[in-house]
Amino acid sequence: MLIKNRKANNQQTPEWINDPPLEGTFRAIFKWGAPDRYKNPSSGFLDIIRERLNLKHDDFENHDLIGNIKVEKPKGEEEKSKIIKPDDIDGIKKIVGVENISLDRYSRVKFSKGKSMEDILKLRHGIVENIPDLVVHPENREQIREIVEYCNEKRIPLHVYGGGSSVTLGLDCLKGGITLVMNTHMNRLVEFNEKNQTITVEAGMMGPAYEKLLNEAPELLGASHRYTGGHFPQSFEFSSVGGWVVTLGAGQASSYYGDAYDLVISQEYITPAGSFKTLEYPATATGPKVNDIMKGSEGVFGVLVAVTMKIFRYFPENSKTFAFMFPDWDSTVKAARNISQGEFGMPSILRISDAEESDVAMKMYNLEGSFLDKFMKIKQYKPGKRCILMGQADGEKEFTDNIKKQVKKICKKEQGLYLTGYPLIKWRHGRFSDPYMRDSLNDYGVLIDTLEASVTWKNLHELHSRVRRYIKNRPDTICMTHASHFYSQGTNLYFIFITRAEHPDDFQIFQRGIIKEIIAGKGSLSHHHGVGRMMGPFMKSHIGEVQLDVLKAIKKHFDPNNIMNPGGILGMGD
Amino acid sequence: MLIKNRKANNQQTPEWINDPPLEGTFRAIFKWGAPDRYKNPSSGFLDIIRERLNLKHDDFENHDLIGNIKVEKPKGEEEKSKIIKPDDIDGIKKIVGVENISLDRYSRVKFSKGKSMEDILKLRHGIVENIPDLVVHPENREQIREIVEYCNEKRIPLHVYGGGSSVTLGLDCLKGGITLVMNTHMNRLVEFNEKNQTITVEAGMMGPAYEKLLNEAPELLGASHRYTGGHFPQSFEFSSVGGWVVTLGAGQASSYYGDAYDLVISQEYITPAGSFKTLEYPATATGPKVNDIMKGSEGVFGVLVAVTMKIFRYFPENSKTFAFMFPDWDSTVKAARNISQGEFGMPSILRISDAEESDVAMKMYNLEGSFLDKFMKIKQYKPGKRCILMGQADGEKEFTDNIKKQVKKICKKEQGLYLTGYPLIKWRHGRFSDPYMRDSLNDYGVLIDTLEASVTWKNLHELHSRVRRYIKNRPDTICMTHASHFYSQGTNLYFIFITRAEHPDDFQIFQRGIIKEIIAGKGSLSHHHGVGRMMGPFMKSHIGEVQLDVLKAIKKHFDPNNIMNPGGILGMGD
Repeated sequence: MLIKNRKANNQQTPEWINDPPLEGTFRAIFKWGAPDRYKNPSSGFLDIIRERLNLKHDDFENHDLIGNIKVEKPKGEEEKSKIIKPDDIDGIKKIVGVENISLDRYSRVKFSKGKSMEDILKLRHGIVENIPDLVVHPENREQIREIVEYCNEKRIPLHVYGGGSSVTLGLDCLKGGITLVMNTHMNRLVEFNEKNQTITVEAGMMGPAYEKLLNEAPELLGASHRYTGGHFPQSFEFSSVGGWVVTLGAGQASSYYGDAYDLVISQEYITPAGSFKTLEYPATATGPKVNDIMKGSEGVFGVLVAVTMKIFRYFPENSKTFAFMFPDWDSTVKAARNISQGEFGMPSILRISDAEESDVAMKMYNLEGSFLDKFMKIKQYKPGKRCILMGQADGEKEFTDNIKKQVKKICKKEQGLYLTGYPLIKWRHGRFSDPYMRDSLNDYGVLIDTLEASVTWKNLHELHSRVRRYIKNRPDTICMTHASHFYSQGTNLYFIFITRAEHPDDFQIFQRGIIKEIIAGKGSLSHHHGVGRMMGPFMKSHIGEVQLDVLKAIKKHFDPNNIMNPGGILGMGD
Repeated sequence: MLIKNRKANNQQTPEWINDPPLEGTFRAIFKWGAPDRYKNPSSGFLDIIRERLNLKHDDFENHDLIGNIKVEKPKGEEEKSKIIKPDDIDGIKKIVGVENISLDRYSRVKFSKGKSMEDILKLRHGIVENIPDLVVHPENREQIREIVEYCNEKRIPLHVYGGGSSVTLGLDCLKGGITLVMNTHMNRLVEFNEKNQTITVEAGMMGPAYEKLLNEAPELLGASHRYTGGHFPQSFEFSSVGGWVVTLGAGQASSYYGDAYDLVISQEYITPAGSFKTLEYPATATGPKVNDIMKGSEGVFGVLVAVTMKIFRYFPENSKTFAFMFPDWDSTVKAARNISQGEFGMPSILRISDAEESDVAMKMYNLEGSFLDKFMKIKQYKPGKRCILMGQADGEKEFTDNIKKQVKKICKKEQGLYLTGYPLIKWRHGRFSDPYMRDSLNDYGVLIDTLEASVTWKNLHELHSRVRRYIKNRPDTICMTHASHFYSQGTNLYFIFITRAEHPDDFQIFQRGIIKEIIAGKGSLSHHHGVGRMMGPFMKSHIGEVQLDVLKAIKKHFDPNNIMNPGGILGMGD
């Protein structure tokens, strides 16, 4: 039974569900993050949603499908795998021990579902599809090697689960088989090398454990300095280092530190075609780099067991924050481009929000109606037009001082009004907890999802207006857009859309339509979410058949029997 | 007939050959750079060579093999290719026109030889090996496409020549066939995109033309700013943009601008398996990146026809130079590491020279015996121990000011004695002309060659001392070492060795021994020279069979008939 939030029991504030999900339920699987943590929309944010989605009071009276139902085998259903025989279960048990195997339906659902709106909607509807026959928690690389060999010999599909934060249907098991869970045991420190500024960890180490080791390197590792990994995706708390690498994630500080692709020095893989560790050099000229070929392979070539990452000296005391309001999107983009092309070093965090997102931000940060807001309105920074740029510089003290100084100079030239670092600090405060709000809203049938794309400066405006036009064409829908990863050649666009949908299929059709608009608008199929099975079908039209065939040839080399994460991921075919 | 340098006709100064080579001679092929340019060793440098190589006066009395002999078909030799039939020559003529075909022996030698000491020695000895049957100068991508198709159908080996500066036997045609020369016609600007800060050029555009376009972008391209490509390898004047990419070159300013691998945004290839252009995004998460797989492919997958490169705003007025003398190699390396790990932005140029190279530099820059030199000797900066660090910061003004300030702070802590920017300016002055000196010394049988490797900070000292030990074990041999490309994880070591050898084979055995020592000392097989046929045989032991098999699988996919640059390059087998 749920204990509802009694205090909020009035017409204005919905009765948010703030209790941990019941054990073994669908809700326990789809709920974001820690079971006992939650975050509800602020009244300002909720007001916008009510208004823009044209919701009435009674839309927040009754919960929609909240998923507090046990995940159980449907009555009368025969659960007999065509892939895995009882002998195989014994075979795997012999490798990892009975304690490292889960056959129960809850585990099989949990470890094959990610956090896309589609995953969540289906789980709320109790729809169970594409689950493995067996979940395995390997203890070491030798066990993984034996499992890969076993599965290759027996043609058993093999999937890998890191932190479970995929938003691209990357974890589905279309043909059943086995899912390896890496974060149970394969989460250890392998080597810390201060002189080389690298750390080697097993692929299943989670973000917070990784960053803690580095921040507290003097205390925990006997280091001379503090370090940071510089990688902070929104999923940071619930994603693994290996997951970052195989899906090509980018953290919120990537404009300075680089994305996961840039951060990897070396990787160790176990594949059906053999095991290897790439050499540890920061740069080489020894032909095409196998180390890079493996990045972003999303489990189709083999299992990533350990990874050596670049680390950075950590000077939180030198962080400089800044935020500006611009009269319109054009001037905001121009300022961001001039910062990115300025040759004075990049801020670690740099974000620009379009007018719709900026309006929401003003409400979320309780700035609307403030003295500042009134001042802005007088000064031609009007709601519906005005846009926020904000960021943070990290590194050596005078380096960060100068970045802030140059940023200010550039922003001033584009009529940016300095807002101090307050909005960035507010944003930073909520950056890892915002996903919790989705569950609260979903409980009332309000759906939130995101799609994102790389784009060059030249194509940015076209992509932005094209995708917005499509999304806003759906009645009663919010579309907020920001760019948050900057390069001298371009950036990304990140589209957040909030809408209602009667059924998962309805939502899926709408969402796939956005992907099509992104491609037509010259955005990339993904900037940092990866491809998975969601973008897989678009790969051929996006990169072209000749290039996709290259990836297929590499796949065929590593995995001739197609056991590694099969079923349409990366556009690899079945 | 040679006109000798009369002024120098005494025992002290050798009679350097400063005249252009005779047309059609071996010398015209192997001589570095422009026919009418030369550079002779300074008296200080020559003194060291005389002393360390234990040379006598008469060693500089008579020229050795100077190669002023016409490249001609040996008398009585039947020149009938097993690969190319007269019909094929007609077939290729139909594609490119008779004016774009060369069948003469001089062209065939010229366009299949690079600038390694081994190439030069063989040419001085008149040894002609591994030349193509036909040299072709394609005019456009359509012609290249037809040639690739023709060669694939007829199984004719196809090679590509960019600027001809390979030092890894990358241009040899072991099986005859065709060499495509890219710098004749395929050297045009395709697109300049100022908003995206990219430029697209055909692969055969040479360094100076490329950099001139960018530096003079306002005048030549109507741009708002000046730009730089940021890529200045020592071969800059005589290498092509495409060559930089397919061999993974690194310029002398790579510590800030990145190496060729980092600079490429997109590439267009024609391969036996099809043609394609990779998408132009600064970053993506759409699986393994075909754009990166192609970099460093050294012609074995297909022909690079055009490339889109990152460019940078150019502020030569903000350049800051610096140089320091350290008491020893240890403190020099430590300072360089602290600069590279300091999080204040990297200098574009950063170089450290070991004691032997620093001694030579003091002589070359005429610092030895100066007041400064005397001061240093008093202050414990002794010849044979002391080492030079020098560099240059580029970018926005306060950014470069701060880099110089931080560099000074770090160097001071390691007892670095500030020498002003003078040594860097001296070095910069000679950086593209120094290779001319090799020809002058070679004319007296004094050989100079270089090998280089990536190395982590941790392994730097071991690699340095191991390789030095091997080289110095050869009597009367100079070994100068520097590091010139810096990363927070490590750097490169660049070994310059000066010695005498009776015969090319003697030299080759010595040189291959150095490569073996590099691998044993945990250096990479190459940091920026590429692999070619020289390092090819070491690829398997270096990256391991499992990884080499990945490259072979990709090769097989692109080029199932093995027509693209066959014969051991990149360790691909025959």
